[in-house]
Amino acid sequence: MSEPLPGPALVIKPEGMTGRTGRYEKRLSDLDGLFADAEAFAARLATEADRVIYHVDEFRPSGAAGDLITGISTLSAGRVGAEFHMTRGHIHAQHDRTEIYHCLSGHGLMLMETLDGQTVVTELRPGVVAYVPPVHIHRSVNLGDEDLVTLFCYPADAGQDYGIIARSGGMRHRAVADGTGWRLEENSGYVPR
Amino acid sequence: MSEPLPGPALVIKPEGMTGRTGRYEKRLSDLDGLFADAEAFAARLATEADRVIYHVDEFRPSGAAGDLITGISTLSAGRVGAEFHMTRGHIHAQHDRTEIYHCLSGHGLMLMETLDGQTVVTELRPGVVAYVPPVHIHRSVNLGDEDLVTLFCYPADAGQDYGIIARSGGMRHRAVADGTGWRLEENSGYVPR
Ligand SMILES: [Mn+2]
Ligand SMILES: [Mn+2]
Repeated sequence: MSEPLPGPALVIKPEGMTGRTGRYEKRLSDLDGLFADAEAFAARLATEADRVIYHVDEFRPSGAAGDLITGISTLSAGRVGAEFHMTRGHIHAQHDRTEIYHCLSGHGLMLMETLDGQTVVTELRPGVVAYVPPVHIHRSVNLGDEDLVTLFCYPADAGQDYGIIARSGGMRHRAVADGTGWRLEENSGYVPR
Repeated sequence: MSEPLPGPALVIKPEGMTGRTGRYEKRLSDLDGLFADAEAFAARLATEADRVIYHVDEFRPSGAAGDLITGISTLSAGRVGAEFHMTRGHIHAQHDRTEIYHCLSGHGLMLMETLDGQTVVTELRPGVVAYVPPVHIHRSVNLGDEDLVTLFCYPADAGQDYGIIARSGGMRHRAVADGTGWRLEENSGYVPR
């Protein structure tokens, strides 16, 4: 009779998620073209090009239909000009694949957009679970002064199209500082699909 | 130009998950036949038949391939004889659909089993993310003195076969008290598939 075996050991720790199959990092130099204020970006790039803006620890058991990719996304606090730190954003290559993000710490937004330009936004605070519906572009935004840490989970066959936002000159709305708070501002460079 | 809309507002609170599409409860009387010690079960049933042993708040946006069902499972602490409180358990109707459970509080197990009777077990503590691989029967067990609270997420087209465990006389192993701790004990009533 066989003995019990241990299941995969994924543990969320401050330094990362143990048991992960991979980690990737995005540095300031990887985020060229994302932000409205090109001068502010260039100024930061001069001294912080290699600064990691966000990193993702993931568990990718397979790419099969019916399986799940899970992980932890850690997005640092800060701004480029008035605009808050954010991820590159994407739509799933299989557009109808959805996703959830469970906010573990920090304050931010799940900023989403339909293909015909309707912005949908969920404010992230610990305990909030953001649901990304089918056929929604999505990115994380950090509105606070500390890391925004989220657990994400999505279908393993979803894939990502990372070019969709840039093809429209950015998302319809940008998250910018408003006094000590924040607001969504129309993106003057937006080109409807 | 249309204004931003709010996304679905799922928030995990002590009293439950707001924004849920449904909640179900399992009372002691619903769990007849699960536990090894029939006498101990009958004794508890005499005074606690209606006691809720666990409840699940879920967000079920659809049943479509590529979508996700998410929610919070709250399993109370306690034992039937030596055996710890547990959920009914199931295998997904689409066997290869996987699942994740992120432990938010408490101490327990994700107790799993392959179709040919290999037990696989992941100990749950806050910060642990248990992954249920394809074609694994799975149930939660509460080893502690307080509620075991987990966030779960699985493919919306997975479905559940709740009869599979009973058809084999229970899972291969049972989680029982061992002094102040716990151990997995072979199930003497187990019938291989
Ligand atoms: Mn995604
Ligand atoms: Mn399941």
